[in-house]
This record gives sequence, C-alpha cells and structure tokens, in this order.
Amino acid sequence: MLDAHWFTEIVPGAESAFSLKIKNKLHAEQSEFQYLEIYETEGFGNLMVIDGCTMVSTRDNFFYHEMMSHTALFTHPAPKKVWIIGGGDCGTLREVLKHDSVEQAIQIDIDERVTRLAEIYFPELCESNNDPRAELKFIDGIKWVKDAAPNSVDIIIVDSTDPVGPAEGLFSEQFYRDCYNCLTPNGMVIQQSESALFHLPLIGEMRDAMSHAGLSHLQTLFFPQCLYPSGWWSATIASKAELAEFRKVDAAAKTFATVYYNADIHQAALAQPEFFKQAMAKRA
Amino acid sequence: MLDAHWFTEIVPGAESAFSLKIKNKLHAEQSEFQYLEIYETEGFGNLMVIDGCTMVSTRDNFFYHEMMSHTALFTHPAPKKVWIIGGGDCGTLREVLKHDSVEQAIQIDIDERVTRLAEIYFPELCESNNDPRAELKFIDGIKWVKDAAPNSVDIIIVDSTDPVGPAEGLFSEQFYRDCYNCLTPNGMVIQQSESALFHLPLIGEMRDAMSHAGLSHLQTLFFPQCLYPSGWWSATIASKAELAEFRKVDAAAKTFATVYYNADIHQAALAQPEFFKQAMAKRA
Repeated sequence: MLDAHWFTEIVPGAESAFSLKIKNKLHAEQSEFQYLEIYETEGFGNLMVIDGCTMVSTRDNFFYHEMMSHTALFTHPAPKKVWIIGGGDCGTLREVLKHDSVEQAIQIDIDERVTRLAEIYFPELCESNNDPRAELKFIDGIKWVKDAAPNSVDIIIVDSTDPVGPAEGLFSEQFYRDCYNCLTPNGMVIQQSESALFHLPLIGEMRDAMSHAGLSHLQTLFFPQCLYPSGWWSATIASKAELAEFRKVDAAAKTFATVYYNADIHQAALAQPEFFKQAMAKRA
Repeated sequence: MLDAHWFTEIVPGAESAFSLKIKNKLHAEQSEFQYLEIYETEGFGNLMVIDGCTMVSTRDNFFYHEMMSHTALFTHPAPKKVWIIGGGDCGTLREVLKHDSVEQAIQIDIDERVTRLAEIYFPELCESNNDPRAELKFIDGIKWVKDAAPNSVDIIIVDSTDPVGPAEGLFSEQFYRDCYNCLTPNGMVIQQSESALFHLPLIGEMRDAMSHAGLSHLQTLFFPQCLYPSGWWSATIASKAELAEFRKVDAAAKTFATVYYNADIHQAALAQPEFFKQAMAKRA
C-alpha cells in the first residue's frame, strides 16, 4: 500500500490510479479558478497538479507538448498565426515558436497563476515566453474565440484540462462553431481528446460536435503519455478544409530539436487502432 | 490515498505506481516458481499478478498479445513453426493460431500453474489450447531452446516476465545464441523489451546481446499497454536474415479479428521516437 509520500490520481470509471512518489510539496494554492499544487517527485522531476489531476511533469511532458503542436503545424500548409487556448504551463507555446513560419502565437489561459508557477517550477517550458512573436493573455479562451474577427487565426490549439469544470465549454459544438468563424480557410483546431482506452464515447461525441460545426475533416492522433489516464493519450485535428498529407519533407528536415516527435512518429500517430476505427465507423 | 481495496505495483527507479481497484481476491498461491494472485477488479475485469507484478487483465491484454504475435508472424515470409517461451496465460498462443500458415505452435512455460489459473480466470485467452496445432509444455524454456536441433523453428516469441527471477536468463547473449542455433535461415526472435521511457539502457543492452549472438537485424516496436510500467511498452524483433518490409498486403487482408492490430498499426509501431533513435545510434 502507498503511504502519504505518494501523490495519487484515481481515474473514475476505469477505477485505476497512477501515483508518483513525492520528495517535497513545493507549493499549494487556491487560485481564482482551481486548486494548484506543485510537488518535487522522486522520479519525474517537478509535478503540477490542478484540481487533483496530474497536469505536467518535468520528465514526460515532451510527448504531449510536441504532439499537440508539431502535428498540427506540419499539417497546415503555412501556419502564421497560432492561438493556444489553455496551455498555461507554456510548454506548447515553446514548441509552436520553434516553427519559423509562425509570426504570432497567442496563449490564452484563464488562470494566470498556472503560468506564474510554471515560470518558477518549469522554467524550461517558459524559455520562449519572451519571444517577440509570443503574447500571453490571461482571459477566458471561450470568450476570446467567440469575440474574434473572421479570418484571424490559422491554428487553434486547445490545450485544456479534462472536460469538467472550467474546460467543459471547450468541448461543445458552440465552441467549435466559434472556432470555425475565426479560422482562415485552411484553418484547423487541434484539441487534446483523452484516452481511447478509457474515454472512447467522449472522443466520438467530440468528433461529432466538431463535424457538425463545420470542422468536418478529422484526424485523431495517438501517443504515449505516462502521466495521463491509461498512459495513452490522443489529440484530434478538426479542419475546415480537406486534410492533405502532412508536410513530410519539412517535418523530416525540421531544424529544431524534439524528444519524441519526428516525421515517422507523426505518420505513426495517425494509424487508427482496429477498435477505434470500428467504433467511429458505427457512429457515421 | 488508496485504501486496502486497491492492488498497487510500484516501479522502482521511476518511483511511479499503477493501481487497480479490487472487488474480490479470487485466488493466491505460491507455485513451485513464483507467487500467483488473481483478482476481480472494478474496471479491468480479472487481473493476474505474478510476484507482485501485474501480468494480464481481461480489459487491456489485447495490446500486448496482438503486438507480440502478429508483428512477427507478418514479418516472417511464411511462419510454420512457432515457439512461445513463457506466455503461460495462453493469450499469445491464441493469436499465433489465428494464422493459417502456422502448422505447429508450442508454448513452453516453466510454471504449469499459470496456465491452469488462466483456464479458470481468463478462459477467452485459452480458447485455442485444444487446437490440434497447439502443444503446451511445462518445462524450462531456456533448456528447451538450448537442447533444440538446428533448423527447428521459424519464430521464437519470448513472452516472459521482467528480467529478474526466473526470466533473467531469457535476456542473455547465451540464450540468443541458443535461439540462433535452432532457428531456420529466415528465423527470428520477438521478445518483450520493457518501456522505452523507464528502461532505455536495458533495451540497448538487449539489442546488443541479440546482435552479438548473430541475430543482428533488429526492429523495436512500440505500443500502448496500460497495465505495464509507464503505460507504453515495446517488443524487439531480432532476425538472422535481413528484415524485409512486413507482409503489408497479407496484414491488410487478414482473415481474423483483432482489437488493436492492423497493417497501419504495425507500420506505426515501427516508428522510432527521436530520443530512442539517438540513444541507439550512440551505442552503435
């Protein structure tokens, strides 16, 4: 049995749990929006927990941040303007700014405290925050997208918490309609879409909502993410325009370093497990 | 904190843990070789635990069993004779026998009790045990391979526990030499090779040992496996002959059902993460 030196997150439904051994509790606070904790772990570096859910660790965040950014940016033909809704730890922003084509990247997280804590406890994720192309806003991302002018953005990355609490509205058809309205003609959303092992119906509902909102060209990508329920995560790209193959030549010749992502891994992430293919076909 | 109603496996080094909520403890015994436990879980069906390590659950075993079998069987040009070293739960045997080309599949697990418990608690994994092509032996797999005649087998699947205790010898250069000696000219080993996130040096050492033993054509494949440390597992194919592309046409036209595996997933599993590629290149 685990003693009090472990942080544990239980996954309801699956009735599984993932735990990390804690060296020190570094910080805890109730922000205006959520309960934030920072731990120093024995094996995963620092750990940020939001409302009891593990969000990001030093050791394994590269999977998620790379797969939420480079997949979309190498799929869009020429991404210049990128918004990140959520993403307060700034890790996705850092990856986005590795692309020279990007002229402007705006991170819109409702909770400034997440970023302030990331600056202290995950400084490596924040190393591009002062890039002249970066802008950090601490406002409601749902309202930001709703109020945006048409044709404002090429890629919207929805890097949110689970679809309960503050992030719930980010999984709604209305939100995707608002995205549709402010995206450029080749524009696309990429959104974290939970675990295909644990949350298959949710992925189906999300894809349906995206599709009904006009973002009807879909790709769900799969990748490991130790820290998240089942250790196997997904992201879904929803595009206004038909999705051509991703820019393989550019991805293979990328001029920046990654830990997990490369052109082969991008292609691999697109492979649909047999049960996933069958479940999605049944909905169609 | 998790109470006594949870079964937990701690991963040393990573200092992470995975837990499943238990409905009932169905069985426990000390066999001649190891301590075996069977639980009924809340979310994963039945669970077999060997020496404190989660081995197989009803809910998610399909990833591992399919990826340990179909990848090798669709890589070999015409597999007729297959041995499974370990694999006492019979799930790999079931998958192997889905291939019509297979004339003989011998499962060699040192511990008969694992199979007897699988017959009771995982009957679906044992449904091909009476196939006339199947043979179950309860003897030492290391000795079996050592004593085998040259040219006896096309594929050896090493479906073992971790490289400590009874399975340690299955990760040694001497074992791979013995495999080399009894494999046919196109023969190959496929062996579970732990987590690239947690056990990267071990994968490197294993690949080196395989290579030194003459099984010098290597492929490491990656796939999700919720139940195992980090939720992300690997298998390594080590072949006597140069590895051509796998039989994609046959895999795409497979006549049997799978839950995870298909031709795209096979291709995807071959993609090497950037950090893995770099770490293996450094050893070369």
